[in-house]
Amino acid sequence: MSSAHPASFPFPGAPRHPLPPPPPPTYRTPPRLSPTVPYNRYGAAFRSHLCGRVNLTDVDAQRSISVCGWLHKKRMDHRFWLLRDWSGTLQVTLDDRQRTEWAAWLGEVALESVLRVSGVPQRRPPGQANPRMATGQLELRVEQMQVLNPAAARLPFTCAQWEAAEVGEPVRMQYRYLDLRRAVMQRNLRLRSWLLQRMRRFLHDHAGFVDVDTPYLFRATPGGAQEFPVASQLPGKFYSLAQSPQQFKQLLMVAGVDRYFQVARCFRDESNNPEKQPEFTQLDVEMSFVGMEDVLALVEDLLRFSWPAPEILAEAANFPWTDRDALPPPAFPFPRMSYKDAMTSYGTDKPDTRFAWHIRDITPWARDYRLFGNTPLHPGSTVRAFVAPGAAPLCKKAFKDALDTLVKREYPGVLLSFLTLKPDGSLSRAALPREAAAQLHSLVGGIQGEDLVVVCGGPEERCLKALGRLRLETADYVEKNGKSVREDAFKFLWVVDFPLFARAEEGSGWETVHHPFTAPHPEDAHLLQAGGDLSRIRGQHYDLVLNGAEVAGGSIRLERAAEQRHVLQLLQINPADVGHLLAGLDSGCPPHGGIALGLDRLVCLLARAKSIRDVIAFPKTAQGRDLMAEAPCSLPGKTLQLYHLAVTANTAPDRSHDGG
Amino acid sequence: MSSAHPASFPFPGAPRHPLPPPPPPTYRTPPRLSPTVPYNRYGAAFRSHLCGRVNLTDVDAQRSISVCGWLHKKRMDHRFWLLRDWSGTLQVTLDDRQRTEWAAWLGEVALESVLRVSGVPQRRPPGQANPRMATGQLELRVEQMQVLNPAAARLPFTCAQWEAAEVGEPVRMQYRYLDLRRAVMQRNLRLRSWLLQRMRRFLHDHAGFVDVDTPYLFRATPGGAQEFPVASQLPGKFYSLAQSPQQFKQLLMVAGVDRYFQVARCFRDESNNPEKQPEFTQLDVEMSFVGMEDVLALVEDLLRFSWPAPEILAEAANFPWTDRDALPPPAFPFPRMSYKDAMTSYGTDKPDTRFAWHIRDITPWARDYRLFGNTPLHPGSTVRAFVAPGAAPLCKKAFKDALDTLVKREYPGVLLSFLTLKPDGSLSRAALPREAAAQLHSLVGGIQGEDLVVVCGGPEERCLKALGRLRLETADYVEKNGKSVREDAFKFLWVVDFPLFARAEEGSGWETVHHPFTAPHPEDAHLLQAGGDLSRIRGQHYDLVLNGAEVAGGSIRLERAAEQRHVLQLLQINPADVGHLLAGLDSGCPPHGGIALGLDRLVCLLARAKSIRDVIAFPKTAQGRDLMAEAPCSLPGKTLQLYHLAVTANTAPDRSHDGG
Repeated sequence: MSSAHPASFPFPGAPRHPLPPPPPPTYRTPPRLSPTVPYNRYGAAFRSHLCGRVNLTDVDAQRSISVCGWLHKKRMDHRFWLLRDWSGTLQVTLDDRQRTEWAAWLGEVALESVLRVSGVPQRRPPGQANPRMATGQLELRVEQMQVLNPAAARLPFTCAQWEAAEVGEPVRMQYRYLDLRRAVMQRNLRLRSWLLQRMRRFLHDHAGFVDVDTPYLFRATPGGAQEFPVASQLPGKFYSLAQSPQQFKQLLMVAGVDRYFQVARCFRDESNNPEKQPEFTQLDVEMSFVGMEDVLALVEDLLRFSWPAPEILAEAANFPWTDRDALPPPAFPFPRMSYKDAMTSYGTDKPDTRFAWHIRDITPWARDYRLFGNTPLHPGSTVRAFVAPGAAPLCKKAFKDALDTLVKREYPGVLLSFLTLKPDGSLSRAALPREAAAQLHSLVGGIQGEDLVVVCGGPEERCLKALGRLRLETADYVEKNGKSVREDAFKFLWVVDFPLFARAEEGSGWETVHHPFTAPHPEDAHLLQAGGDLSRIRGQHYDLVLNGAEVAGGSIRLERAAEQRHVLQLLQINPADVGHLLAGLDSGCPPHGGIALGLDRLVCLLARAKSIRDVIAFPKTAQGRDLMAEAPCSLPGKTLQLYHLAVTANTAPDRSHDGG
Repeated sequence: MSSAHPASFPFPGAPRHPLPPPPPPTYRTPPRLSPTVPYNRYGAAFRSHLCGRVNLTDVDAQRSISVCGWLHKKRMDHRFWLLRDWSGTLQVTLDDRQRTEWAAWLGEVALESVLRVSGVPQRRPPGQANPRMATGQLELRVEQMQVLNPAAARLPFTCAQWEAAEVGEPVRMQYRYLDLRRAVMQRNLRLRSWLLQRMRRFLHDHAGFVDVDTPYLFRATPGGAQEFPVASQLPGKFYSLAQSPQQFKQLLMVAGVDRYFQVARCFRDESNNPEKQPEFTQLDVEMSFVGMEDVLALVEDLLRFSWPAPEILAEAANFPWTDRDALPPPAFPFPRMSYKDAMTSYGTDKPDTRFAWHIRDITPWARDYRLFGNTPLHPGSTVRAFVAPGAAPLCKKAFKDALDTLVKREYPGVLLSFLTLKPDGSLSRAALPREAAAQLHSLVGGIQGEDLVVVCGGPEERCLKALGRLRLETADYVEKNGKSVREDAFKFLWVVDFPLFARAEEGSGWETVHHPFTAPHPEDAHLLQAGGDLSRIRGQHYDLVLNGAEVAGGSIRLERAAEQRHVLQLLQINPADVGHLLAGLDSGCPPHGGIALGLDRLVCLLARAKSIRDVIAFPKTAQGRDLMAEAPCSLPGKTLQLYHLAVTANTAPDRSHDGG
């Protein structure tokens, strides 16, 4: 090529909008969470109905039906048994003759045994209806009853016991097949399946994406998370489990696939983060011939299409132990915030915008009134504060002391102070004059009678991060004490304009904020070559935040091999480690970008579950253990030999005793 | 429980059909393979149209459009350039002024560079239309042209070069991102994505299945394939990559999920089978409260729903290098054959029923006429034969010799003979009297003038397997020589009534034919306890065969812990290795069964590809290598240290040099 930049050949600045883009498409009503399918099309020899779906029409038909399920409860000396399947429970009723003739049997059948019951459904006698049960108006008068498979007499726990007392997580993990029987877990699994199905449908049927499986057995990649090594029978050669399909999806763009998606498993050995799983699921998306706006529009269209309507969420909640009202869908399009604004106002790059409590700069005020007394504030230090409305009466000394300890431990060098208003309108600090209150009032956007002002002073970045943390801790504490803080809603936010590089934690070099394949912001691209302070360069990276949690992250990628090589050099990454990607970029690579949605987190928020472990069928502990199957485990010597492996002496601290 | 068998309590032999099952559902027309979506909804700044979708309506509109794509070809001294994206190619036309002004540039732009072209589409001048191109009636008169990203001047191969000469597989693998640009590969990826989408839709929307992700990081499991060890940071502890979700899906049935599916990755270290991949994809299905008939009906409904209609396959074939006619869908329901019949008539448990050539027993005839002359046939030996109609003139001596070598090498002890008819109606063996021909004619179901009779004698099982192999080899050879043998159709077949156990290859024990969790045939269940010859016990195992390839396999599972323990004992498997499964079976486990469809193979047959590697985006070589990224590879010492690993001396033969 000639020396001129070929991207603008031969018409630099040519208009890029020959035709206006079409409006967002409209879609039909989504299906139900648990669609009504002919459930006896397969298995008619066992059952004609689901337990929870027997209804008064079946009573009117006066035909014998049959159901299968688990013995949930026995009541009234075997007069009433509750039979349960995923769809709900059904009361089966035994008459006096049956109870007498089968007395010995009935006592021996353990709870959670699998039964098949035939009979005619009847309306319950007056006054015996149960309005909290979907089938509470009827009962099945037993004609035939079979124990298809008995349960052991003493199980670690049963679903019915849960109604009285919860079971600890290690026990739930060890007996996950019992835990998953609970209605809330069934609901979570089905909500997840429903959402995935909708997302795939949008991408494939409505947006022209191709679902491509990419390999999990990959090679070690530079930067990023710690990867699991997989032994091969080639001596000394290891695969690494792919930490994401990043390189493959970029190569699919090089290959002209144009629009790719995959519900992909990702593997990262993050043994120290209790909220991370060693394998997790993401919806991985990549597109050619797009810019950032296109990816954001796609994700909003995707979520608009696949977001469960309130009636779906209400259906999902229509299980015994979940009775919350369904929330309305989020507002589209999502608001945006720059990384800098997020850090300044919320002290984090994933602001929880369900409540305000914005952080404000009160540095001059704090200096004037010597807020921190004799403790010196270093030059260049900053003082910031947020107001927790109405929190003062709830936040007792013990809580404030705990926050103080937290700041001293995790944000050394940051000074912490709490301010409230006295009844006379002055501030709760003797040394502060009366007019200080009025000045602070206007600086922080208003202080009311019972508000708590939380103040931190110190180096800017650390000070903001401390306040971001204190803001969340205080909100949690206030809510725990009965005062609502957060709006009960799905609050999405795009965070954009991230820096491309940050100072490496070790050494004098730079590391990438996202990953080494992110393109710089077009306005800052020239700074890449200029050298100097790389922290000024913004990347074309975007995060999607929902209620204070990161649910998606992506970027526009570097599409030119020369630029990619330059970035690798800045990051001191050996180009040979990504030689295949560089060769791909050199082979005709379209402009491209994408995003990955963390499905575990998204489903967790949607299901209002406490932990992502509640929306994963078989999760592992924080230490990466499967307590049910006992993995990882030792391997026989001949397997190690086949893979040319030996285990070296234990050089790391023993972490073999974790409870779950 | 009391001693009576609780499965029949309290009404042994109670009728299991209270209501008739509903008829198979009907469905609407499936969508197109590449649905028409507003492709410029994302990326309108780059393009308004896809290259292959510009049509005469756009010509009539006389508006400027823009397309993006790869420079496929240059023709007529830069008068015509062909631009390509996944949807097809478009001719862009430069006028004389442009060719003069941009002459230097035009020569420098390498093939496969990524361009953006704007202009007004025009009808081609009379006589210049190309009927072999979807856009062959029109061309785009260039107004603006940008090189978005140049390609290197010398690529290993380009799509256009492929039209002249194919590239070897190792090169295709190494530069997979170039290989995937070819229309046939794009078609394969899209057909795969389409089929998966339809299958998921059937299972989720129409049959009540829940899509559940199960872990890939699992523990070593007994029996079955060699599993890949994954190192953990716990010293001496390894995960094993799940060879299938078998145990998890059974535990999901214990958990009451009822109907589960997953498009699951499976990992098996089968380094020696060139047609196997170390990771492959299967559609994994499990159902509760069903028997074998239900699973077979489900799979037939699934395939009926998701089978691409001829117009979809025709659309799929509507790419330059694939011009075959689309085949009609298979006939439903699929025929069935017992394992024994399959072995007897086809010499294999996966018969290719696209052609007859049935194997027949001619033992008495062969003994009477001493077919093998002085070579003794051991007592108990058998003689079988099949007729290859019209094959005699094609099968020359060299081919017969090759078959002879094959039988001697792989089926020792089996004798091989070929017979044909002489013009006078006698057999081509001098020693055989005239009446022998007539007798053989009636034994093998007819011999015509040019037929070849292939005969094997020896121990029954080996003799049948040899003939099964010779049947396929001969058919391949005859077809290669221009005579069609196989019907051009999708021929499905269920193979049922497999034996549950087979003699172990090593030692005196037994091994399982399917896997240790398969239930025995109800009629044979009593033989499990009886001891003795276990080979008589049939299992509730079923395989689905398409055109001679196994595309699915499944079974009804053992649902009782006691039976499962007994089978493990017979197989000499330590019950502690599947303790979690046994505990699950003891906790209230419904009757259940399932199946797994091998998607790579199914798509390969559907796409009429030569190898499953042609329908996998990034396949590995027969030796498990990724030639593009160079995996597996060495790891740095500190990674090995982190995982407490050392590599032992190379004790296995070096297999590090494979070409692909």
